[in-house]
Amino acid sequence: MAANKKNMNYNYAFLFYDVNEKRVQKVFKLCKKYLSHFQYSVFRGEMTPSKLIKLKDELNNVINKEEDFVCIIKLMNDNVFVEDILGSPSKKTGEDLII
Amino acid sequence: MAANKKNMNYNYAFLFYDVNEKRVQKVFKLCKKYLSHFQYSVFRGEMTPSKLIKLKDELNNVINKEEDFVCIIKLMNDNVFVEDILGSPSKKTGEDLII
Repeated sequence: MAANKKNMNYNYAFLFYDVNEKRVQKVFKLCKKYLSHFQYSVFRGEMTPSKLIKLKDELNNVINKEEDFVCIIKLMNDNVFVEDILGSPSKKTGEDLII
Repeated sequence: MAANKKNMNYNYAFLFYDVNEKRVQKVFKLCKKYLSHFQYSVFRGEMTPSKLIKLKDELNNVINKEEDFVCIIKLMNDNVFVEDILGSPSKKTGEDLII
């Protein structure tokens, strides 16, 4: 089962990070290159297997593996989830959050 | 298509929030009652349709809809996603983050 999941094509991703503030700006910009900023340290968007490899390579070059944490949730496509929103999205832009 | 998605059963959820600090402790505790704390303002875990209704009711009683934002991503089950982790998870517990 796990092997089957690994061989599937994932074309949508959520990404959350928790990185040291020294590197947060670099990580933010890198994630924004590949995904849309969704909320604080959460990004989301369409993702191809080749884009994902590039994103992970670039992240691995920037983060400190002892101190930082990045989680990428890969989904087959945006039909496998539904979202419920309560309240209203933040008016802050992503850029405000990293200054 | 959208109608079909709405009628499906979702049994796993990710939840992200961005709430005013006055209410963050209440929202954190409420989310922890139903889901596992994953990272900063991110929770995840198994979810039944009835639990989800209760969680949303309780959240709606606590949040200020003008200022706060909660997003629940509902998935059919935990087989529809795969996660890639880079770096190491935070050693901080959820409780540290809300004090």
